[in-house]
Amino acid sequence: MSATATSRNQVFTSGVVEMAHGSGGRLMAELIERLFVPAFANPVLTGQEDQAVLALPPGRLVVSTDSYVVSPLFFPGGNIGDLAVHGTVNDVAMAGARPLYLTAGFIIEEGFPLPDLERIVRTMARAAAAAKVGIVTGDTKVVEKGKGDGVFINTTGLGVVDDGIAPSATRARPGDAILVSGPIGDHGVAILSKRSGLSFETDIVSDTAALHGLVARMVAAVPDVHCLRDPTRGGLSAVLNEIAQASRVGMRLTEVSLPVRPAVLGACELLGLDVLHIANEGKLVAMCAAADADRLLGAMRTDPHGAEAAIIGTVVEDPECFVELETRFGGTRIVDWIAGEQLPRIC
Amino acid sequence: MSATATSRNQVFTSGVVEMAHGSGGRLMAELIERLFVPAFANPVLTGQEDQAVLALPPGRLVVSTDSYVVSPLFFPGGNIGDLAVHGTVNDVAMAGARPLYLTAGFIIEEGFPLPDLERIVRTMARAAAAAKVGIVTGDTKVVEKGKGDGVFINTTGLGVVDDGIAPSATRARPGDAILVSGPIGDHGVAILSKRSGLSFETDIVSDTAALHGLVARMVAAVPDVHCLRDPTRGGLSAVLNEIAQASRVGMRLTEVSLPVRPAVLGACELLGLDVLHIANEGKLVAMCAAADADRLLGAMRTDPHGAEAAIIGTVVEDPECFVELETRFGGTRIVDWIAGEQLPRIC
Repeated sequence: MSATATSRNQVFTSGVVEMAHGSGGRLMAELIERLFVPAFANPVLTGQEDQAVLALPPGRLVVSTDSYVVSPLFFPGGNIGDLAVHGTVNDVAMAGARPLYLTAGFIIEEGFPLPDLERIVRTMARAAAAAKVGIVTGDTKVVEKGKGDGVFINTTGLGVVDDGIAPSATRARPGDAILVSGPIGDHGVAILSKRSGLSFETDIVSDTAALHGLVARMVAAVPDVHCLRDPTRGGLSAVLNEIAQASRVGMRLTEVSLPVRPAVLGACELLGLDVLHIANEGKLVAMCAAADADRLLGAMRTDPHGAEAAIIGTVVEDPECFVELETRFGGTRIVDWIAGEQLPRIC
Repeated sequence: MSATATSRNQVFTSGVVEMAHGSGGRLMAELIERLFVPAFANPVLTGQEDQAVLALPPGRLVVSTDSYVVSPLFFPGGNIGDLAVHGTVNDVAMAGARPLYLTAGFIIEEGFPLPDLERIVRTMARAAAAAKVGIVTGDTKVVEKGKGDGVFINTTGLGVVDDGIAPSATRARPGDAILVSGPIGDHGVAILSKRSGLSFETDIVSDTAALHGLVARMVAAVPDVHCLRDPTRGGLSAVLNEIAQASRVGMRLTEVSLPVRPAVLGACELLGLDVLHIANEGKLVAMCAAADADRLLGAMRTDPHGAEAAIIGTVVEDPECFVELETRFGGTRIVDWIAGEQLPRIC
């Protein structure tokens, strides 16, 4: 659907969300019938029940939940709506699974413009349709002005994973190759570029994207992939440190092999930020046996979301579980977790 | 675990939630490892993965989601923690299903006291353990002071329902009996009694409770139960009007058969509120064929949460889908949905 067609079909051209939209009464029923049910149209979501009843294909069930509180709600490359679909689809996919269904829970601040809500809901619906996941049940709450911040969205994702596929943060082994699916830092820098108080502008847009197609190619090529994780909040450094701790291993990265767009690198240098701490919303990190690495890399590069994939390092034995980076000048530095808060409300 | 034992084991006796607790970094990992994982202890929730992988028994999958924004967070008879477990367990159960798993997403306001968060999390954990559902995955976000209101919790529930059991808002038929599981209005009045600006006090406590045990007895006795719904936001009137619309039928209630505690009735009269609009968090409404009504009622009364169950009316043919109440003085009035907002943030 084009942007023009969307605006022609717009239900709300004015008006704001009122407390009564969360009352359980008539106004809430109208919001559900006029906005949510048509946007998310699917056979399961009728608006008439408080739950969805689903048939699942064989396999183990995978479930993941995330609340999205990104600020600003609209940013270069997306808005909270597609972010809330992609982020949860990706968390399900990182189990090596096929995402099938999403739930959607909205917490809306009184006074939030209805046309903005509709724009978010339609973006969400398009992202879900593109990812071929059904939004099957939902919930709407309204809080008083000053008790929220526009809209928060929780999505919970359901999928199934085939037997024999079991990536886990505990399965990194010394000798494993570490791969990343593409340039890092785009989402965080896109958000920063919009934040009030920061005056730099770049042409960087968020990488927000659903990665389950990429994951499907990866597990088809290398069913025994050891780890899969999307480096969102806390960036690559948080994910690598979590896996290092969970697997009781160390990691050695080479800076020169790390894909980063020049504009992102420039923005990070300007602001004194470490790109390894910056959030991504359309990238993944994978670890696999060294013998499988080229096959995994080849499979990743056949997918549009993995075209710029790279091998960035190796898992090593290390009782202290350090993640270290060999810099482009030949030195070595420890890649630590951020202890404090660098970029609040990035997702 | 007794209240004394709980406070002896308290992890946080001081401190507040900081933005960094939502950063994806070290402080968030510590919060998860020290508070959430021990409280929700179960084999699936390790704190190391972004998703849970589950085995499900046979049956259709049922999923329901709700965000809880109740104010105040602590109220007579419960807090947002057990409310968030019971509410979603009940929405799953109202499909005639056995709830099995919950996800939990927290949106916490910066500055929220850590001991209060711990109290809520431990209440949640006890409610989940009592209901025999596992909290299998979760998420924590932190928003700046003034951009939230203490804590909001989303829970998504998963369960399974046996073939042949399919209660639905669309299945009420003329002649069906309408049953309620006990006295209505307790939760709403308990919240009201705590709200600032309202000076009355009662000994009414919230009815917050998990009803899946009651539902199991009901579907065992009458597998063909037509409708099951918990009358939360909007109260009995919203649920009955929704079912009337969805099934294209009318309903006739008799006021004299409607169970209401005298203290609740008194509070409603004092405040000019209609008890039919007041939220419940531990009651359900059921509809079934007239021939099954006594069997269903008998089954309900064998459960502690259905001991005061009653038949309160009949489904009738009505092209206008009106819900009408025969008053205790012999008159008739229409039971309308609330159009506006009577009691914001009741759940």
